[in-house]
Amino acid sequence: MLLSSKDNRIVKDAAKLREKKYRDASGCFLLEGPEAVREAARQGGRLRFIFTRAGASLPELGIELFGQAPAVYETTEDVFAKLAGTETPQGVVAVAERPLWKEEDLFPREDSNVLVLDRVQDPGNTGTLIRTAEAMGFAGVLLVKGCCDPWSPKVVRSAAGSLLRLPTLQAESAADALALLVKHGKRCFCALMDGETACCDAELAKGCAVVIGNEGRGACEEFIRACGGLRIPMEGSTESLNAAFAGAIIMYESLRQRLTAEK
Amino acid sequence: MLLSSKDNRIVKDAAKLREKKYRDASGCFLLEGPEAVREAARQGGRLRFIFTRAGASLPELGIELFGQAPAVYETTEDVFAKLAGTETPQGVVAVAERPLWKEEDLFPREDSNVLVLDRVQDPGNTGTLIRTAEAMGFAGVLLVKGCCDPWSPKVVRSAAGSLLRLPTLQAESAADALALLVKHGKRCFCALMDGETACCDAELAKGCAVVIGNEGRGACEEFIRACGGLRIPMEGSTESLNAAFAGAIIMYESLRQRLTAEK
Repeated sequence: MLLSSKDNRIVKDAAKLREKKYRDASGCFLLEGPEAVREAARQGGRLRFIFTRAGASLPELGIELFGQAPAVYETTEDVFAKLAGTETPQGVVAVAERPLWKEEDLFPREDSNVLVLDRVQDPGNTGTLIRTAEAMGFAGVLLVKGCCDPWSPKVVRSAAGSLLRLPTLQAESAADALALLVKHGKRCFCALMDGETACCDAELAKGCAVVIGNEGRGACEEFIRACGGLRIPMEGSTESLNAAFAGAIIMYESLRQRLTAEK
Repeated sequence: MLLSSKDNRIVKDAAKLREKKYRDASGCFLLEGPEAVREAARQGGRLRFIFTRAGASLPELGIELFGQAPAVYETTEDVFAKLAGTETPQGVVAVAERPLWKEEDLFPREDSNVLVLDRVQDPGNTGTLIRTAEAMGFAGVLLVKGCCDPWSPKVVRSAAGSLLRLPTLQAESAADALALLVKHGKRCFCALMDGETACCDAELAKGCAVVIGNEGRGACEEFIRACGGLRIPMEGSTESLNAAFAGAIIMYESLRQRLTAEK
């Protein structure tokens, strides 16, 4: 079916998913581009709608549906532009359901690690940190209120599929997040420029929570008071690394310690 | 002196520095915003011109000149907009001379490490890798032809001062770069998704070159053939980390090994 009107209900509802309040209300989010849609289908992410730009078919885009039957619409150029916003995904946009994660998904075992993001606001940083958390074997990511929305198109893009696999949960405040971490017996660390322990000297292999704070201002007081401060060892005159790099290095250090211990 | 004409020679020449060919011809580059200019002055970077937006004075911008005497011009709003391009640095833009690095600056000692960038094209990645190389105690960065220009405004911004301190050199080809690395006795490693050695199992503390390839396509064949392949240990289903993260983790691993050995 060819959708040619930007006022079509389905088109309008899908385009609204660029805004957080509509994502929250519907429990859905947007996937942009063939690779994202392909990956989501392959991993069993629940697809509701697929919109292709006129002329592009799913097989041509390399998209297999693995038994799912979302509604598939071909769209005119201007309808597609409305769905795609300012970005230009190659020929396809889809509406998918967010996975519904529970507390126990984020804390599967006593010895599992968890990443905590405190007001991390850059979507690229957020997505990359989620992707790196998965790569480094962390069990999930807890996002404290004030972070950018992990289901925004930019985060979804830079997380490159990890959002469908790795449990994420949102906490209303730093206090709520800390309560949850304490309840699950996590040893809590916080990345700090002048943290008292170099990350390579802290025991990070198992049962840890690692807090990464805001790009400019760092983590908030509550976390700093409650957590052990971790610094990245540095030489030269650089003042600090960016938040996403600090997070990646600390999570790598955790995996390295675990691999070394297993030898 | 107030510059009010966009056709003024000095304004036109400075604005041209947004283009690589004029940066190469003049040996100069642009610094944007008070923090970048302040840092450059503090570190003895040679400033030629400073342009402030009408109404903003150097003391108000927190800029001290440490004995330097560049020409300082106040500019009207539209002249400043021409200098600042699409970005909006807060009130100040400066023209500075590139440091002139020599081969021996990049290879100061037999045991020093060097970062090699092979067609890394994202300016943010490039700048952050240069900044991280300095933080992790690498002696310099060798950029193979095909990388983005390290003196472009975006790279300068994300390198946050490191470009004035850390030696950088450009190589005409992968073959030229390898010849230089071999001449200086570096053991060469290349970040590869399926590299044969996990970075935590390779000896990276001293005397190494670490090659980071293009964001999408990785390093070129010449490097892959000549270098030991390093992979970042990973769990889960993530396929790869972004080039800048892989580089940061490998350079951190190098510093970690060095610090551990010194204990």
